[in-house]
Amino acid sequence: MPTENKNDVAAPFLGLAEKRLRNLVDISRAFSEEVELSALLALVARRTSEAMGTERTSVFLHDPERRELWTVVAEGEPREIRMPEDAGIAGWVATRGEVAVVSDVTRDPRWNKEIDRRTGYTTRNILCVPMDDPGGERLGAFQCLNRAEGNFTQDDVTFLQAIASQAAVYIQNARLLEARKRMFDSLVDTLAETIESRDPLTAGHSRNVMAYAVGTAKKLGLPPEDVEVIRYAALLHDYGKIGLPDDILRKPTTLTPAEYEVIKKHVFYTQQILARIHFEERLKEVPVVAAHHHERLDGSGYPEALAGDGISFGGKIIAVADVFDAMTSRRHYRGPMTVPQAVDVITEGAGSQFDAETVRALKRFLIEEGRLEPDEVD
Amino acid sequence: MPTENKNDVAAPFLGLAEKRLRNLVDISRAFSEEVELSALLALVARRTSEAMGTERTSVFLHDPERRELWTVVAEGEPREIRMPEDAGIAGWVATRGEVAVVSDVTRDPRWNKEIDRRTGYTTRNILCVPMDDPGGERLGAFQCLNRAEGNFTQDDVTFLQAIASQAAVYIQNARLLEARKRMFDSLVDTLAETIESRDPLTAGHSRNVMAYAVGTAKKLGLPPEDVEVIRYAALLHDYGKIGLPDDILRKPTTLTPAEYEVIKKHVFYTQQILARIHFEERLKEVPVVAAHHHERLDGSGYPEALAGDGISFGGKIIAVADVFDAMTSRRHYRGPMTVPQAVDVITEGAGSQFDAETVRALKRFLIEEGRLEPDEVD
Repeated sequence: MPTENKNDVAAPFLGLAEKRLRNLVDISRAFSEEVELSALLALVARRTSEAMGTERTSVFLHDPERRELWTVVAEGEPREIRMPEDAGIAGWVATRGEVAVVSDVTRDPRWNKEIDRRTGYTTRNILCVPMDDPGGERLGAFQCLNRAEGNFTQDDVTFLQAIASQAAVYIQNARLLEARKRMFDSLVDTLAETIESRDPLTAGHSRNVMAYAVGTAKKLGLPPEDVEVIRYAALLHDYGKIGLPDDILRKPTTLTPAEYEVIKKHVFYTQQILARIHFEERLKEVPVVAAHHHERLDGSGYPEALAGDGISFGGKIIAVADVFDAMTSRRHYRGPMTVPQAVDVITEGAGSQFDAETVRALKRFLIEEGRLEPDEVD
Repeated sequence: MPTENKNDVAAPFLGLAEKRLRNLVDISRAFSEEVELSALLALVARRTSEAMGTERTSVFLHDPERRELWTVVAEGEPREIRMPEDAGIAGWVATRGEVAVVSDVTRDPRWNKEIDRRTGYTTRNILCVPMDDPGGERLGAFQCLNRAEGNFTQDDVTFLQAIASQAAVYIQNARLLEARKRMFDSLVDTLAETIESRDPLTAGHSRNVMAYAVGTAKKLGLPPEDVEVIRYAALLHDYGKIGLPDDILRKPTTLTPAEYEVIKKHVFYTQQILARIHFEERLKEVPVVAAHHHERLDGSGYPEALAGDGISFGGKIIAVADVFDAMTSRRHYRGPMTVPQAVDVITEGAGSQFDAETVRALKRFLIEEGRLEPDEVD
């Protein structure tokens, strides 16, 4: 197996412990260099095989819902392998939390021949250690196959346990982060919907604006971080409407100028409310972007009558998405416009009220979505 | 320096690489065994000193707001040491992201004598490596002081870099998790307040109920995980009021039976809404607990008329806290009761409507808070 470790030019002259130490140093560094979980584990598996002198390393994760083990990494096997949670040696290890050292698999009743039959690989010997999370819960197993020479030693076990420990900490953290993101996202989604639930006619508005704004941002080729900011800002842009009275929100006729002034305050409330949320570093622009959704390129918007570059780019995108969704939806005082009609209106405003590039990008998105015919665009 | 490593009975017979390997294995395992950050880093620092044959190891973290470095761990120094972000050798290393190997600090112009003067320690030599997060941002520095014999080698540098890498990944993850929790918590707080903002008279109600319920839960000696569930459930228990019309919410006179039926629906809405939030594993009881806040011990509550053990324990606590805050607050149709009056009412209901132990715990909390005199309690 080829190695990418530059230190290894000296490797033939080093003792086993020296080599192992270098390998473990390399593996420890890998954890801080690679961010994406499966790529990281693939790198760790390769370096583990080098260090252990084995042919292949696999990392099994436990899936408690399906009661299965699956290979997040299996060297030599591009496809994910799934098996019952207690099947084979990995299943025995993961279930009991004990180490298995098997010098000849054909003589071990725990061995699951089925996998070799499926993959066409011939397993001879196995070292498998459990992977537990810091809370002690079953996470999976780390497994080395086919040591080239000799039997696995106690030092091999200890070494593999050290790697499995590091991987476990990393995997558990990645899961906690993901779970916490899912919790936050679901609260934002639910919040956006419940705010609109006060007025059945605007139900779905924030979600629609989010879809149009994200679609537009992607068509404009914005980086994923910016798309993420726009996503949250769009979902939350009307949060301030929670402060408006029912009788104005649901008024069945055209609003009076005084009532319109009350409606306009929602942007101010949105800004005030979002300023109190401690957004993560990468999302810290969300309140500003959300607060700009009624500003207009020519300075004719509100609440600050900002113009041109004074308006955040995300704000310009949400402004177009917001107007477009409002026009194509029914309101208490009017019916919905068709998509081509609404596109005509925003196209007329392109360059004056709306950012022209943004308007073009939204049209490309609508065409892609099958909501607009290419020939309906100027 | 004494060691707690059981393997070290064999240590005198091992070569340097073998010892280092064992140390690194131990350190890797420490990361999966210790959960609390500063305790973990203290353990890692001690093992690093053993492995490096140095007197002390310190871990410096960068504080971007105060533009300082501070010691999250400094062996031999129980107090935190703070210094300007670019001061001394650690500052040089953290700022430049480069390694410093200093065999005689008195001959190095970067050395900051001030720390030794403050601590009474005499530094002779230093190995210091930067700690960067996976995104490449400056996190701090890992520093070993006073190697017993000889000079620091390239292997020492590589070894310390491996440890610093592992620590960096761990610290960065802990921070991301904390930031994500803060973001979620601030959204929950903001949400609780904004829902109440529709009716000025109930402003602060969810926060008050949270304070009473958490105070009661702690007096009952509940474990921190349960207190956490109660905290979120209390803050969100009236979320469903977002679905109620203004004219009933703010009605200045007593509600008609029909209007009261509408009000009662808010518990159902709360339950429906919270069921859509993907709470983390440890918080998954929040929707159930929140949905029980109008159930009564004797089955006279709503929406499900549950009784006794059919009601979650957290639900019983929030029920008492909710009634107590409602009675001691002004409402559109009545003035506030005094604390002793309200305590009398819940005491009367203890054992029938309310859990008696919970009522006693709330009273103990109110006495502790100086809201109730001990002799005002039966």
